[in-house]
Amino acid sequence: MAVEQCLAVIDCDVHQNFNNIQELLPWVDPAFRDYLVHGGYGGYSLPNYPWLHPSGFMRGDAVPDGGGVPGSDYGLLREQLLDAFDVEYAILTGEEILSISAVPHPPLAAALATAYNRWLTEEWLPRDPRLRGSLVVAPQDAERAAAEIRAFGGHNGIVQVIVSCGAPTGYGDRRYHPIYDAAAELGLPLAMHVGAEGLGTNAPPTATGYPAYYIEWHTLLPTTAMSHLVSLVCQGVFERFPGLRVAVVEAGVTWLPGLLWRLDSNWRSLRSEAPWLKELPSETIRRHVRFTTQPLEQPGNVESLWRVLEAVDGLDEMLMFATDYPHWDFDEPSQVSRRLPAGWRDAVMSENARAFYRLPARAVEPEPVAAEAAR
Amino acid sequence: MAVEQCLAVIDCDVHQNFNNIQELLPWVDPAFRDYLVHGGYGGYSLPNYPWLHPSGFMRGDAVPDGGGVPGSDYGLLREQLLDAFDVEYAILTGEEILSISAVPHPPLAAALATAYNRWLTEEWLPRDPRLRGSLVVAPQDAERAAAEIRAFGGHNGIVQVIVSCGAPTGYGDRRYHPIYDAAAELGLPLAMHVGAEGLGTNAPPTATGYPAYYIEWHTLLPTTAMSHLVSLVCQGVFERFPGLRVAVVEAGVTWLPGLLWRLDSNWRSLRSEAPWLKELPSETIRRHVRFTTQPLEQPGNVESLWRVLEAVDGLDEMLMFATDYPHWDFDEPSQVSRRLPAGWRDAVMSENARAFYRLPARAVEPEPVAAEAAR
Repeated sequence: MAVEQCLAVIDCDVHQNFNNIQELLPWVDPAFRDYLVHGGYGGYSLPNYPWLHPSGFMRGDAVPDGGGVPGSDYGLLREQLLDAFDVEYAILTGEEILSISAVPHPPLAAALATAYNRWLTEEWLPRDPRLRGSLVVAPQDAERAAAEIRAFGGHNGIVQVIVSCGAPTGYGDRRYHPIYDAAAELGLPLAMHVGAEGLGTNAPPTATGYPAYYIEWHTLLPTTAMSHLVSLVCQGVFERFPGLRVAVVEAGVTWLPGLLWRLDSNWRSLRSEAPWLKELPSETIRRHVRFTTQPLEQPGNVESLWRVLEAVDGLDEMLMFATDYPHWDFDEPSQVSRRLPAGWRDAVMSENARAFYRLPARAVEPEPVAAEAAR
Repeated sequence: MAVEQCLAVIDCDVHQNFNNIQELLPWVDPAFRDYLVHGGYGGYSLPNYPWLHPSGFMRGDAVPDGGGVPGSDYGLLREQLLDAFDVEYAILTGEEILSISAVPHPPLAAALATAYNRWLTEEWLPRDPRLRGSLVVAPQDAERAAAEIRAFGGHNGIVQVIVSCGAPTGYGDRRYHPIYDAAAELGLPLAMHVGAEGLGTNAPPTATGYPAYYIEWHTLLPTTAMSHLVSLVCQGVFERFPGLRVAVVEAGVTWLPGLLWRLDSNWRSLRSEAPWLKELPSETIRRHVRFTTQPLEQPGNVESLWRVLEAVDGLDEMLMFATDYPHWDFDEPSQVSRRLPAGWRDAVMSENARAFYRLPARAVEPEPVAAEAAR
């Protein structure tokens, strides 16, 4: 345990959750209360996954004592994560709420996002100075999402805006520009987090449509992140919003060397098609994008992993540690730090995230701010 | 040029083509002749690409002297490829015909495949002892495709069955089993070749739907191959058809380490979902699957490429050289052999393909066989 105790740890992907979406009732716009209470089969539920982990998406030991959903109990989260690994900051990324990207009804999706953000800032962030929050937006209506960012983004506990990787189209599309405008204005990164791939109104989850098994669906999740990244870069989002920063969360990283090389080669050959791209895409990505580690790939031989990670110039400054608590494939800090090239550990385990999220040197209670001042 | 002259070269991806599909008229089932002559706007054409290379998909210097489509002129193909690089064997993979996978009308797609296969075996293969052919099938009707394989697969010039990566679903799906049964029976590998992604009845070409630009579409092509590979393995195709061998053609290779590690980790955690999988997926893939080199990724530093290639155990036995003549991103043999780890060159440039396609030690005219004996 000595290794862990020496390491500062910033955990960039922690899934707090509600037990069911009806818990958001006190925070939801009255126009949608009926939906939440009576919608569908006796109460609204978000689009759910037809691809199921056979023994459950969550760590079995993360179920609270009195029952309930893993991630719903602050006490247990503190015990199993914050205190157990001396986590300096934990970035809360939500859980089921990310599936609002798959909801067909844009105002409903936006109302659920707002209710969640109120719950997050009122119920979760004040509990512990180590917690930071991700502002959930419904990308279906980007103007409405931008208003949400301007309403809540000034809260000192909010460190980023978050959307799911499951989407009807790549995030480079013009329809999403108002979101980037608002995020850049407030200095908040955009996190693209794995989730809702193939659900509801989102695109099929792979480039060959719908898979049969969870193992296929899960193995191919990085292809959605790859697709968004290529879309953001090629459609010129970083030229248009030079202040925008992006975090790719829970999508792995070892696909990165090959993708960057292919994209750079294609830019050299094809830039007449996209003349707004003024530099190598890998340079743009290095400056604007960060990647969380979990699930960090586990080859039989750790040196093979180093070889791939070290093949990308500057990746040591682009990786940010994450546990993905309380998901089934949770990575312990020591398990990851052991798998990193030795010179990378401080940067990846804490300092890259500290710089990216502009976090103080030691965790302090964020200063209270009127959360919805701009509404 | 010394390097090239010492190297035996087997080129696993050479695109011969017709000038237009009406050239297949003499070989097409009479029931579909009207389609070819009068269909659509005054003559049938296959679904075409809405994502266009801004300066053309083909090498400008590969246009035949009297005009026409690159790849349509055997003399020029011989001069620019077979003779120029002393190619021992060239595996013809077709070109536009691969788009039959996107045709909604299954019997029409099958009739076009048959016409093409007759044209290939009668017009192309007899011209040069260095040429070998890929039998095109329309996967829409797998029983009919299996009959096609049994009809033409005994031709000594045919070395594999070929389908496009563009597809409505992953190739692990049960609907395709008759194709694998027939291919395994005849000892023919199945080639999955980039093509027809997002066209006609195929799935959208990325995991986030339809991209805007060709640079996006082209950069993300490997995600379709990744998806088919995961589908074939996880849905148990290699357990059910242990004699089946697969070539992944024109999809790059540097995504392979990350995908195999992720798939192996997931198999360890999730095999209760897929109990038919009896070994590490990477072992299955190593035994059954080969990858062609083109377009081999080009990082600024060639050692970065080696690091990634060497991270996969046994990849030196899984890679097969290809030029992709006459596509815009054609790879010259010397250009690729220089980028390979030194000890890999013989295997990758020729010997892996020789073993996989069971090609004689020196190119000889294949023995004539009644092509359609089984029809």
